[in-house]
Amino acid sequence: MSLREKGVITGIGETAYSRASGKSVLALQLEASLAAIADAGLTPKDIDGIIVYGSTVAEDFITNFGIADLRFSAVTPMGGASSVAAVQCAIAAISAGICNHVLIPLGRNGSSGTRIGTRVQQMPQFRTIGEFEMPVGAIAPAQLYAPMARRHMELYGTTSRHLAEIAVNTRKHALLNGRGMMTKPLTVEEHQASRMISDPLRLFDCSLESDGGCAVVVSAAERARDMKQRPVLVMGVAEGHPDSPSAITQRPDLTRLGLAKAAPRAFKMAGVSHADIDVAEVYDCFTYIVLCQLEDMGFCKKGEGGPFVMDGTIAIDGKLPLNTHGGLLSQAHMAGINHVVELTRQLRGAAGKAQVKDAEIGLVTGYGDMGDGSIAIMRRA
Amino acid sequence: MSLREKGVITGIGETAYSRASGKSVLALQLEASLAAIADAGLTPKDIDGIIVYGSTVAEDFITNFGIADLRFSAVTPMGGASSVAAVQCAIAAISAGICNHVLIPLGRNGSSGTRIGTRVQQMPQFRTIGEFEMPVGAIAPAQLYAPMARRHMELYGTTSRHLAEIAVNTRKHALLNGRGMMTKPLTVEEHQASRMISDPLRLFDCSLESDGGCAVVVSAAERARDMKQRPVLVMGVAEGHPDSPSAITQRPDLTRLGLAKAAPRAFKMAGVSHADIDVAEVYDCFTYIVLCQLEDMGFCKKGEGGPFVMDGTIAIDGKLPLNTHGGLLSQAHMAGINHVVELTRQLRGAAGKAQVKDAEIGLVTGYGDMGDGSIAIMRRA
Repeated sequence: MSLREKGVITGIGETAYSRASGKSVLALQLEASLAAIADAGLTPKDIDGIIVYGSTVAEDFITNFGIADLRFSAVTPMGGASSVAAVQCAIAAISAGICNHVLIPLGRNGSSGTRIGTRVQQMPQFRTIGEFEMPVGAIAPAQLYAPMARRHMELYGTTSRHLAEIAVNTRKHALLNGRGMMTKPLTVEEHQASRMISDPLRLFDCSLESDGGCAVVVSAAERARDMKQRPVLVMGVAEGHPDSPSAITQRPDLTRLGLAKAAPRAFKMAGVSHADIDVAEVYDCFTYIVLCQLEDMGFCKKGEGGPFVMDGTIAIDGKLPLNTHGGLLSQAHMAGINHVVELTRQLRGAAGKAQVKDAEIGLVTGYGDMGDGSIAIMRRA
Repeated sequence: MSLREKGVITGIGETAYSRASGKSVLALQLEASLAAIADAGLTPKDIDGIIVYGSTVAEDFITNFGIADLRFSAVTPMGGASSVAAVQCAIAAISAGICNHVLIPLGRNGSSGTRIGTRVQQMPQFRTIGEFEMPVGAIAPAQLYAPMARRHMELYGTTSRHLAEIAVNTRKHALLNGRGMMTKPLTVEEHQASRMISDPLRLFDCSLESDGGCAVVVSAAERARDMKQRPVLVMGVAEGHPDSPSAITQRPDLTRLGLAKAAPRAFKMAGVSHADIDVAEVYDCFTYIVLCQLEDMGFCKKGEGGPFVMDGTIAIDGKLPLNTHGGLLSQAHMAGINHVVELTRQLRGAAGKAQVKDAEIGLVTGYGDMGDGSIAIMRRA
């Protein structure tokens, strides 16, 4: 059996994104969830599956929404790859006949509350960096991912200028999207002059720390036909894990992520080729990670990601419009569920000024802390 | 689609159970996992799905086992209901075609390391008892579940003597099983004289705190035909959540668990009736929780659980042989994955002195901290 077109994104919801929400993490998640459920034309009691992320539990939603008979609850603990992996898990549960409407809520006070650099040290998977990385002082994400970017530069001649192109392009899209925390344009010169966080990653290579909530509803394809919104069908979906994910610096190949294993599976399931992709929402905790994923998915050869992103390729009107909402770099760090929201909006033709003309098929990826990857390819009905 | 007979338990593994293992939690989980994988006739590299529990992550297994292409990883965070809920999640992933062999590892130093009473306060779902239960000093599991047992006694005349029957019977089975931490017989008189932990729960109503590891491998039915062991097919499986699970004392009905919703679904999927069940491994963090689950599953009417367990009904040669391994009460607290191991052993006909004669069909349940329930009904091939 294949999961091809068994699941549909039927609802999307977001709160405002800010530096200080003044609300609890649960309140943010409930607010975004209610928006997504209403967007789907459902009521909270219709939700019969929940895949949570972070500190909330399914019980929070059962109690607050009065869900009478939740039939599936899980977590897909893959850091930033969790959101898209949750889409795979949701469709597996739906396809198995366990449930019909799975809520994937996410929300955090990542700016005013627990910051990611702090959280990282509390996450079990980061226990595994205790042997090689932590002893040399590498603890925060930028410190952990800098060696990957540096290795890529050494092997392939990738430059900070290439990374700047991703940052600048993403900022442009955030301004078009209009929901982003970043509201001023960014120039290549500003990127190049920004302070070094962890060589070679500069300030504008790093994603935001954000407060906010974001949620999607995944429904069974046969239920979605009569629902409120134009269905966005999941054609292919997969997760993938890198070799020896535990210690980043001990990996056989620092420049290859789990996505390199997941992407061929997702493309095969979807039955489409790279040329069919009209829009790509690619996990962007750091600019380099975007570049690496474009290679791992096969949009260009390994090592050619730098030249690939130049010359307008990834602009709204380019060959591969990228992160049309502003991503984690310039919209908000919602761990990639906002990428799923944006792809859905694009394929509904409802992305406003950031709309990619005639977007029919698109993809969204997730990237997790230890190199885990996830990908979903979707089309409009 | 239904999950009926799409998944098979193909491998089971256990470490020794003790009060002080002298090993890390990960080492215990790896040891039990290797035993389960070998039991299935597989190699660690054959594992392509992992559902972890507690402090370990899938990355630990990828790295230690050299798994080249893990295709599914998740957590089913339902406390003691997690293990059987993980079986459902594993079969959903298998049935979806994502993977073929899912490892469900569990291990803890629950005696020498982090004790459950401590852990509880760190679990997100227990945040929800902060409003009504914690302020009156109810923090440890025995304190939280005592009001449920007391309510049952008030409504239905259930007595501590009924609970003793479950404790004594379970101890008998632990001695037959021979892998249990408890090695001496227990009498009704000893139970009745044991000290009160949280009224009405006495010492011998409470499960053990244990060090150890325990794991199962769930495989696709079509793969299992040619494998090493006689296949044990999962006929029906479901999870269920109670109404208003967050605050125990604020529930509309204190004597009804999430299992009451899950059990009818599992029986319907399996296509069997209560009379078909030859052996039952029922989650037993406390004696009362067993009694309540027997009612919630419909083996007797609500309120009749006390009389039901008397007169040898739940003995090895009784009408419904119960917890034939000694359960959490007298074997070890492995959060219910040891119940899955024992049911598999029974249906293979390999349970030694504790073997139920001609056991063909059996069930296993899980019970989670906030009243969550899970159930799997299995048969020998």
